[in-house]
Amino acid sequence: MTDHTDLSRACRAIAERAKSASRTLANAPGAAKDDWLRRSAASLRRHADELIAANRNDIAAAPDYGLSAAAIDRLTLDPKRVESIASALESVIALPDPVGEVITSSRRPNGLDVTQIRVPLGVVLFIYESRPNVTADAAALCVKSGNTVILRGGKEALHSNLAIHRILADELPHAGLPADAVQLVGTTDREAVGHLLGMEGLIDLAIPRGGESLIRRVAAEARMPVLKHYHGNCHVYVDASADVPTAVKIIVNAKAQRPGVCNAAETLLVHRAIAPRFLPAAADALIGAGVELRGDEPSRSIVPSMVPATEADWDTEYLAKILAVGVVDSLDAAIEHITKHGSGHTDAIVTTDLASARRFVAEVDSAAVIVNASTRFNDGGELGLGAEIGISTDKFHARGPCGLRELTTTKWVVHGDGQVRG
Amino acid sequence: MTDHTDLSRACRAIAERAKSASRTLANAPGAAKDDWLRRSAASLRRHADELIAANRNDIAAAPDYGLSAAAIDRLTLDPKRVESIASALESVIALPDPVGEVITSSRRPNGLDVTQIRVPLGVVLFIYESRPNVTADAAALCVKSGNTVILRGGKEALHSNLAIHRILADELPHAGLPADAVQLVGTTDREAVGHLLGMEGLIDLAIPRGGESLIRRVAAEARMPVLKHYHGNCHVYVDASADVPTAVKIIVNAKAQRPGVCNAAETLLVHRAIAPRFLPAAADALIGAGVELRGDEPSRSIVPSMVPATEADWDTEYLAKILAVGVVDSLDAAIEHITKHGSGHTDAIVTTDLASARRFVAEVDSAAVIVNASTRFNDGGELGLGAEIGISTDKFHARGPCGLRELTTTKWVVHGDGQVRG
Repeated sequence: MTDHTDLSRACRAIAERAKSASRTLANAPGAAKDDWLRRSAASLRRHADELIAANRNDIAAAPDYGLSAAAIDRLTLDPKRVESIASALESVIALPDPVGEVITSSRRPNGLDVTQIRVPLGVVLFIYESRPNVTADAAALCVKSGNTVILRGGKEALHSNLAIHRILADELPHAGLPADAVQLVGTTDREAVGHLLGMEGLIDLAIPRGGESLIRRVAAEARMPVLKHYHGNCHVYVDASADVPTAVKIIVNAKAQRPGVCNAAETLLVHRAIAPRFLPAAADALIGAGVELRGDEPSRSIVPSMVPATEADWDTEYLAKILAVGVVDSLDAAIEHITKHGSGHTDAIVTTDLASARRFVAEVDSAAVIVNASTRFNDGGELGLGAEIGISTDKFHARGPCGLRELTTTKWVVHGDGQVRG
Repeated sequence: MTDHTDLSRACRAIAERAKSASRTLANAPGAAKDDWLRRSAASLRRHADELIAANRNDIAAAPDYGLSAAAIDRLTLDPKRVESIASALESVIALPDPVGEVITSSRRPNGLDVTQIRVPLGVVLFIYESRPNVTADAAALCVKSGNTVILRGGKEALHSNLAIHRILADELPHAGLPADAVQLVGTTDREAVGHLLGMEGLIDLAIPRGGESLIRRVAAEARMPVLKHYHGNCHVYVDASADVPTAVKIIVNAKAQRPGVCNAAETLLVHRAIAPRFLPAAADALIGAGVELRGDEPSRSIVPSMVPATEADWDTEYLAKILAVGVVDSLDAAIEHITKHGSGHTDAIVTTDLASARRFVAEVDSAAVIVNASTRFNDGGELGLGAEIGISTDKFHARGPCGLRELTTTKWVVHGDGQVRG
C-alpha cells in the first residue's frame, strides 16, 4: 500500500520526466525514431523467451482476477504472438513521419511567409485494459509521432507489460532518443490514474482503451483532452432498392465476422418494400452464422422465429452474436432511427439508388458512413491510416480512426524581414 | 427573477432548437448561406437608425455597470460602425465554404473508395463580453461554416445585441435557412450560462470570448469542448545577431501599436552581447511611445531609468503600455525563459542568424512563432484565414487563430460495391 502523497509525487515525477523528454523527442529526426522501432523489434525477438516467462506470471494470476478462458487466451503470449508484436513495430517504420508536414502555406501581401506545420502534441497518457501487444503498439505510434507516452496497462497484464516496456525503453538511448520517451506506471494502484488525469499542464492528451466504465471514468476525471469513443451502436440500413445478395453478405459480415468489436453492427434496419424478399434470406444466413435475431413486430411477421425486440434493444451494443432487426417505412425513418439510437460511430446503407446513398451520407452524422460495404471497415488499417491508436466518436480534434496525424497538433511559423502592423 | 427550473427548461429548449436546425443547416447550399449574409448586411444598413436607438439604451445604462469612458466608447454604435458591421458580414461571403471539402481520399486495394470530408460541428455556444459587432461576426462565421449558434452576450450590450440578432434572424427564412440557426439568449441571468454549458449532447462546442475569469469559468463548467485561450504573455527575443533598427521597430510595434490585445508583447528578452547597443535605442523608442519599462539588474545597468522588475513581472500580461525587460546569456536561456513563463500564444525572435531562427522555431512551443516580424501578426486576417472567431492556445483540435475550417469536423465516407472484411 503506497502512501497517498508519495503516490501523487511519484506520478508527478513521471509526468515531469515525460514533459521534459517531449521537448527533445519533438525535434528528433525521423531516422532515429525508425531506428528505435527497428531495434525494439529485434530485441523483442531476441528476448521472446523472457517475455513468455514474464507472461506466465500473468497467466498464473489470471484466475485470481476472475478472467474467462477467452480472456486468458487473449492475454497469453507465445512465440507466434511475440513475432507479431515485433513485426507490428516494423510496420510503423513504413508510415510517413507526420512531424514537420506543411499543412498550409502562403506569402502574405506584406511579404510575410506563413506556414502551418504539424508538430507533436507533447505527452500522451495511454490507459488500457487490452492485451499486452497494445503496450508496444501504443508506444510505437506515440514515439513515431514525436510524443512521449506514459503507459498504464491493466493489472491482469502487468508482468507482460513490464517486460515489453523494459525492452522498448532499453533501446531508446541506443537510438539517440530520450530515455523517458516511453514510461510505464509500475503500480496497479487505481489512484495513480486519478493523479495523472489531473496533470493538465504536463500531459497533453489522455487516451483510454477498454470497457465503457474505464472510458467514462477517464472522461469524467481528465483535466486534459481525451480521445475516445464510449461505444459503437452501428447500423446497417437495407434500402428498398438494395441488391439482396449484397445486403445479406454485408449484414452477415458486419454482425458475425468479429462480433466483439466496436465497428460490428448491432441493428439491422430494413425498408418495408424489400423486407419480404430480404429478411428470410438474411435470417437464414445470420442464423446459420450463429446470430440470435431480435425483431420488431413487422420483422417477426415475416420471420416468426425472431425473439421479440424491446425498446432497449435499439440502444444496446451487444458485442455478441445478437442483432436487433427493425422494419422502417422510409429512408427518412431509417435516418431518424439512427439519429435517435446510434452512437455516431459507423453506419452503413445498402442501396442501388444514388439519391438514397447521397442523402444517407449527408444526413447520418457519424464518424464513418458507408455505402454498400461492411461497417467493419471503419478501422485505421482499412481506411489507409496504417495503424490506429483508437477510434474517436467525438467531433473535436479527430473523428474516426486515429493514426499518427491525429497524435499531432499544428504550429504557425511566420518569417518576415522586419514587418510590423500598421 | 426567473425560476430555476423554468430557466433550465428554457435553455434546453433553445439548445434543442439549435440541434434540430443544425441538421438542416449542415446540408444547406453555400449560396443560401451567402444570400443570408448579403440580406443581413443590407438589412443592418436599412435599420441603422433603429440599431443606434437600441444602442442608446445600453449607453444610458452603462454608468450603472461601472463602465469606463473607454468601455462606453467601444460599446457605442454610430452610422460608421453599423456600416462596418454590415461590410464585415459581406467580407465573409468571399471566404471559401469549408463544408464538403475533401481532406484525404484514396482507393483501397479492395476497391473501396475512401474520402474524408469536412462537415460542420453542429451547434456552437458563443459567450462573449465584447462589443456588439461581435454578435454579427460570430453569427456570420458559424452559419457560413454550417453551424447553428447560440449567442450569449454581455449584459452591458443587451439591447444592441438583441437588435442585431433580430435583424440577422429575420433574414434566415428569406434565405431558405432554418429560423433557429441563430439564437440569442435574451436573459442576462448568469445561471443560464451554467445550464447551457451542461448540455453536452446538444451543444458541440463552447467558445468564450472576454476576460480571463469568464474563460476560466466556461472551461471549468463546460461539459463539451471549449475553444479558448486564457491569456497572451507574448515575448520578443532580440538575438545577439539582430539588426538593431529592425529589432527596435518590431518591439515598439509589438508592445505599443495596440497594447490591450492578446498578441501584444509583454516581455522583451535581449541577448547579453547586443544589450549595450540595443537597449538604449529600444528604451528611447519605447519611452517615446509612452511605454513604462521594468528591467532586471543587467538591463537597468544599461538603462538606469527602468523600474526594477520583480519575479511577478515575467508572468504578467499587462495589456497596457508596460514592458518587462530581461537580459539573457544565450538563445537557450531565452527559450527556457519563454518555456517557463510564456502562455504558448505568440513569441518572436529578431535575428540575422539562420541557426538561431531555426532553433527558436523548433523549440518554442507556442501557437505562433515569428521570425523578424511583430507578434501582432498572430491574427486570422493577417495569417490568411480571412476572419477569426477566436485564438486557441490549446493543442487539441485547433491552435492559433480559428476561422471557418476550425469550426468544422470531419466525416469518413466509404463507397463500395459489396466489400466485406476477411
